[in-house]
Amino acid sequence: MSFERVRALTFDVFGTVVDWRTSVIRECEAFGKQYGIAADWASFVDDWRYDGYMGGISRVRKGELPFMTADELHRQKLAALLAERGITGVPGEAVVELNRAWHRLDPWPDAVEGLERLRQHRIVSTLSNGNVALLVNMARYAGLRWDCVLSADITGAFKPDPECYLAGARLLGLEPGAVMMVAAHKRDLQAAQEAGLRAAFVPRPSEAGPDRDVDLEPDPAFDVVAIDFHDLATQLEAVAPTATNG
Amino acid sequence: MSFERVRALTFDVFGTVVDWRTSVIRECEAFGKQYGIAADWASFVDDWRYDGYMGGISRVRKGELPFMTADELHRQKLAALLAERGITGVPGEAVVELNRAWHRLDPWPDAVEGLERLRQHRIVSTLSNGNVALLVNMARYAGLRWDCVLSADITGAFKPDPECYLAGARLLGLEPGAVMMVAAHKRDLQAAQEAGLRAAFVPRPSEAGPDRDVDLEPDPAFDVVAIDFHDLATQLEAVAPTATNG
Repeated sequence: MSFERVRALTFDVFGTVVDWRTSVIRECEAFGKQYGIAADWASFVDDWRYDGYMGGISRVRKGELPFMTADELHRQKLAALLAERGITGVPGEAVVELNRAWHRLDPWPDAVEGLERLRQHRIVSTLSNGNVALLVNMARYAGLRWDCVLSADITGAFKPDPECYLAGARLLGLEPGAVMMVAAHKRDLQAAQEAGLRAAFVPRPSEAGPDRDVDLEPDPAFDVVAIDFHDLATQLEAVAPTATNG
Repeated sequence: MSFERVRALTFDVFGTVVDWRTSVIRECEAFGKQYGIAADWASFVDDWRYDGYMGGISRVRKGELPFMTADELHRQKLAALLAERGITGVPGEAVVELNRAWHRLDPWPDAVEGLERLRQHRIVSTLSNGNVALLVNMARYAGLRWDCVLSADITGAFKPDPECYLAGARLLGLEPGAVMMVAAHKRDLQAAQEAGLRAAFVPRPSEAGPDRDVDLEPDPAFDVVAIDFHDLATQLEAVAPTATNG
């Protein structure tokens, strides 16, 4: 494989760069303690993520909901979950703050240093369905250094719509083939490849917790399979880029 | 003045953060030397900037030209300038590379460290009429650390259109009043204030070279007047922000 042409790496964020599940469960537990609420917070967070956020994105993509940001999708689902589970009497301010748990996600142990290594040779950018405000706050919280924050509220399209990947490349001044998508999720990478981008698969075995099946099998259809961002940097450093963008 | 509510600083870039004129003249001189072309490069660069780029933006804003990026405006004007001045026989590749001079602009001496200080307490973002690719390459070249790169090709509107400032605030998850525009140019700041943002004036006396009048007078209409980014950091550090965004 030849990666000389790859000038930018665009990253999926939730699950690929940060451990959303552990981080948000911890914030929910602290919230429960503060307001005297007992709940199965792991299942609460899984519903919030899979049904609320990912289900919400599917509905936006099908035209069943208007375009809205990740923050808005999170907020709507949080209100619904609190009502369903009979959690009442919490100050509105505290609910707003709980929604902001998604802005304070811990990076995987290799993420901060791995990104720093990858940045030496190539542009590193987010390409996330999260919104700019969320991603900027998360980067400041987690110490992630991005050259650029690109997201669905900038491209106007959620992944896996091809337009999200193509707009990302266009904004970076690059042909799609000069951009490599990095993700822990095969569907994201397959869609990126269909749009003409390159793909690096970095499986994150503990992302979804112990009870959910996740496809972690290496797949030769992807340009790179790496165990973490250090491994990705090592594999890509073997081939430095030649061209400039813009 | 109270700045507790100011959570993000958005920066004009050309002239405010980087010394475009000295940098691009230097690149043009090297280009002239390589291809044996004698020219008044200072006036060439001034035409490129003021007539080509700024004139081009005015024409886009009046609807006389379709929306295009700074790179495209620069490219069109460069071709016209070369033709007007009878400069021919240069390889196309070299012209493309010369256009990229605008991606390699030196920061003012206080910019890198000053931004780092300002980043400790507040989000720092570009809000430039330059395009994302140009701004990302410039940041990597100059060592500028931005939390976020916002620009006309993201907001869909050139400054001083109010929509450019408002879209910037919206993407950062902030009310306009929680964002402070930082610029060396009064018109940019006046438009930002009319859109509801705060304004910090940082005059850059040598931006436009020795022969062009620039309005450097402090103006009490602006929330802050600072001599450089260190001074701006010192004035703002006196009042740390209280709220969070998003």
